[in-house]
Amino acid sequence: MALTKKPVNGMKDILPQEMQIRDYVIGEIKKTYQSFGFTPIETPVVENLSNLTSKQGGDNEKLIFKIMKRGQKFNLETAKCEDDLADSGLRYDLTVPLVRYYANNSNELAKPFKALQIGPVFRADRPQKGRFREFYQCDIDILGEAGNQAEIELILATTTLLGRIGFKGFTVHINDRRILKAMAAYSGFPEDQFDQVFIILDKMDKIGTEGVAQELVESGFPKEAVDRYMGLFTELAEQEDGVAYLGEKLKDVMDPGTAENLKTIMDSVGKTSMVDFDLHFNPTLVRGMSYYTGTIFEIEIAGLGCSAGGGGRYDEMVGKFTGMQTPACGFSIGFERIITILMDQGFKVPGTEDKIAMLVEKNMPADRMCEITKEAQELRAEGKQVLVAVMNKNKKFQKEQLSAEGYTEFREIYVNPRQA
Amino acid sequence: MALTKKPVNGMKDILPQEMQIRDYVIGEIKKTYQSFGFTPIETPVVENLSNLTSKQGGDNEKLIFKIMKRGQKFNLETAKCEDDLADSGLRYDLTVPLVRYYANNSNELAKPFKALQIGPVFRADRPQKGRFREFYQCDIDILGEAGNQAEIELILATTTLLGRIGFKGFTVHINDRRILKAMAAYSGFPEDQFDQVFIILDKMDKIGTEGVAQELVESGFPKEAVDRYMGLFTELAEQEDGVAYLGEKLKDVMDPGTAENLKTIMDSVGKTSMVDFDLHFNPTLVRGMSYYTGTIFEIEIAGLGCSAGGGGRYDEMVGKFTGMQTPACGFSIGFERIITILMDQGFKVPGTEDKIAMLVEKNMPADRMCEITKEAQELRAEGKQVLVAVMNKNKKFQKEQLSAEGYTEFREIYVNPRQA
Repeated sequence: MALTKKPVNGMKDILPQEMQIRDYVIGEIKKTYQSFGFTPIETPVVENLSNLTSKQGGDNEKLIFKIMKRGQKFNLETAKCEDDLADSGLRYDLTVPLVRYYANNSNELAKPFKALQIGPVFRADRPQKGRFREFYQCDIDILGEAGNQAEIELILATTTLLGRIGFKGFTVHINDRRILKAMAAYSGFPEDQFDQVFIILDKMDKIGTEGVAQELVESGFPKEAVDRYMGLFTELAEQEDGVAYLGEKLKDVMDPGTAENLKTIMDSVGKTSMVDFDLHFNPTLVRGMSYYTGTIFEIEIAGLGCSAGGGGRYDEMVGKFTGMQTPACGFSIGFERIITILMDQGFKVPGTEDKIAMLVEKNMPADRMCEITKEAQELRAEGKQVLVAVMNKNKKFQKEQLSAEGYTEFREIYVNPRQA
Repeated sequence: MALTKKPVNGMKDILPQEMQIRDYVIGEIKKTYQSFGFTPIETPVVENLSNLTSKQGGDNEKLIFKIMKRGQKFNLETAKCEDDLADSGLRYDLTVPLVRYYANNSNELAKPFKALQIGPVFRADRPQKGRFREFYQCDIDILGEAGNQAEIELILATTTLLGRIGFKGFTVHINDRRILKAMAAYSGFPEDQFDQVFIILDKMDKIGTEGVAQELVESGFPKEAVDRYMGLFTELAEQEDGVAYLGEKLKDVMDPGTAENLKTIMDSVGKTSMVDFDLHFNPTLVRGMSYYTGTIFEIEIAGLGCSAGGGGRYDEMVGKFTGMQTPACGFSIGFERIITILMDQGFKVPGTEDKIAMLVEKNMPADRMCEITKEAQELRAEGKQVLVAVMNKNKKFQKEQLSAEGYTEFREIYVNPRQA
């Protein structure tokens, strides 16, 4: 029977050219993050279904690829619904497996534990351009560190990485969920409706201040609260030091340590970073997931108009799901987005200048072939990449294909050397 | 709700210590195989169910993790069997995806195409010690190369890799399915029962020559054929050049090119290899999969008594499943077995001597913390791995944990330096 040639719907084959870039970026990620003391770990791509549906994953829980029970456990006759037939699923992010991993292996892990994960996650999303159902995520997380050194290290590591890959002119937006909440409280929004306010605020870069104000009013929030809220943003825009300003302004509704903490993070990163980027206090930064409890951040690469990663502090999640109270903070870069950007820019992987293709005419006698192999072996021992391949009839096309794979030097070897 | 702490049945979390070794080995694999002109590719871990059940995978097809259809396609009421509810599955090897990949992307790939794949595969096997339901495979394959340069490069690349990882004293057993068949034909076994003969022959290293002879007779094969067959192996044991001997002996039932081909492979590898290993013609080598059509090989590491990888030529499979006649040859190393061996040997990853842990006493003032971070940043810029972490109460235990992660230098930094 003939195979179906296409990959399953929404997933993709990775061609050699993209693969070179992915391998290079993964190498830089590992090297950079390890230099910051993050330790690589790996979890199964298959996760207990009950863990995946524990209400931590928000809308992603609707997009799970479920795996069927097998053998006697699979009983079609007694099954009343989908979940009677499934016992596991493909992970939709790396956070649920990380929390499980930490709970499972806690005794064998250093504290604080600095984890680096790179790997595929799966979401049965509607496939669309540039968005796949299998894609890589790349997360760093610090578990067990309550102090702001966690945030500082996460921001330094991530920006160092982006700098190493060659990105310039990027901005890290930073905010704190406690500032967000204090601003909403100060304005008079009821606490149980904060999340609804933030969902609208999150549209700021799309619909602007007036759009946000209008939508808040239309959603039924009191005009007075909306005006006061918008007034805060207007005042903030005129401040040189927005964090200090809010620390003073919100002192009745916010722990004074909150502004101080954010200021320390920003100052320390500014003083210790070796990469040129803009660290920007952005009071409209929301970050979707409701599990964040403190600092939140997001990376914007100039001219792309979209986030290249983000993260924040989530001090309650680990305790909630494992019973072990553990402060936590993480930063996830948009791995696939970064690869797409590099592909679009025609990025050339550095250090591959020594790729040699030895194209050998057909029917080369065995003893001469042996000589050729020997020569290739010597070049390889010197650290060069050497392909020995039969010369195709269409030599020009063959060389074009190999050039796309990064080969720069071609040696043509003929049975009768005078043909050359 | 609390999470289930354990990974799903039969799969495992990879702890930092093992992960270091895995990353190191994967790095060496990529470096070595790329130096031989193999190009890394990647396919989705999810594959079309029809491709996974196309009878290429042998018994592995019974071990598929099936993924349920979603949305409207999932209909419990009309489903009569398991497969009505599933549309895809987790790949059980890397060969099926490779063949599909080649068919799907053929126009964009160099010919011959030298592919390198490393990634997880999944088998719903009964879990047992050292055997997991998710494990890595690592394959190199050459598609579109009919000549024996393919075999030569595969053996050179694989043995170079094993040498680089530090293995010594290993043997590559080599044979040819056509020699196997000719020996069986010469002895008088009926062709349609060759596979059954080979299954018994494959037990040679467990039950010995006499055991094989006895089982063949007990299975109903004529005593005369069995005697003649065993006689061949006895004669072979006395030959210095078994391949040449068989070339002569089997000349009525075997293409003379077969022995010559094997001899060329063995000679060329012997002359060009830069690693010390034993390349051994083994006429009892069978390799289970019936899709092999020519040369077959298997690696044995001294003292382990088990295979560390194998492969061979499979010239018909690609054509059968894609309609494009394509000669092919591949070599798969036993990645997980190699990792297990290295773990058991207490393998230390080279080049990680510069791991420094800066342990900082709690409540360090922000300005001093900033100085410490700056110092860490400078060390990182010099290429060192530097962890900045809060000092635990149980400092001794913390250092032990970090030593296990490979940290060799510890700097203790106190709020009041005189405490140090």
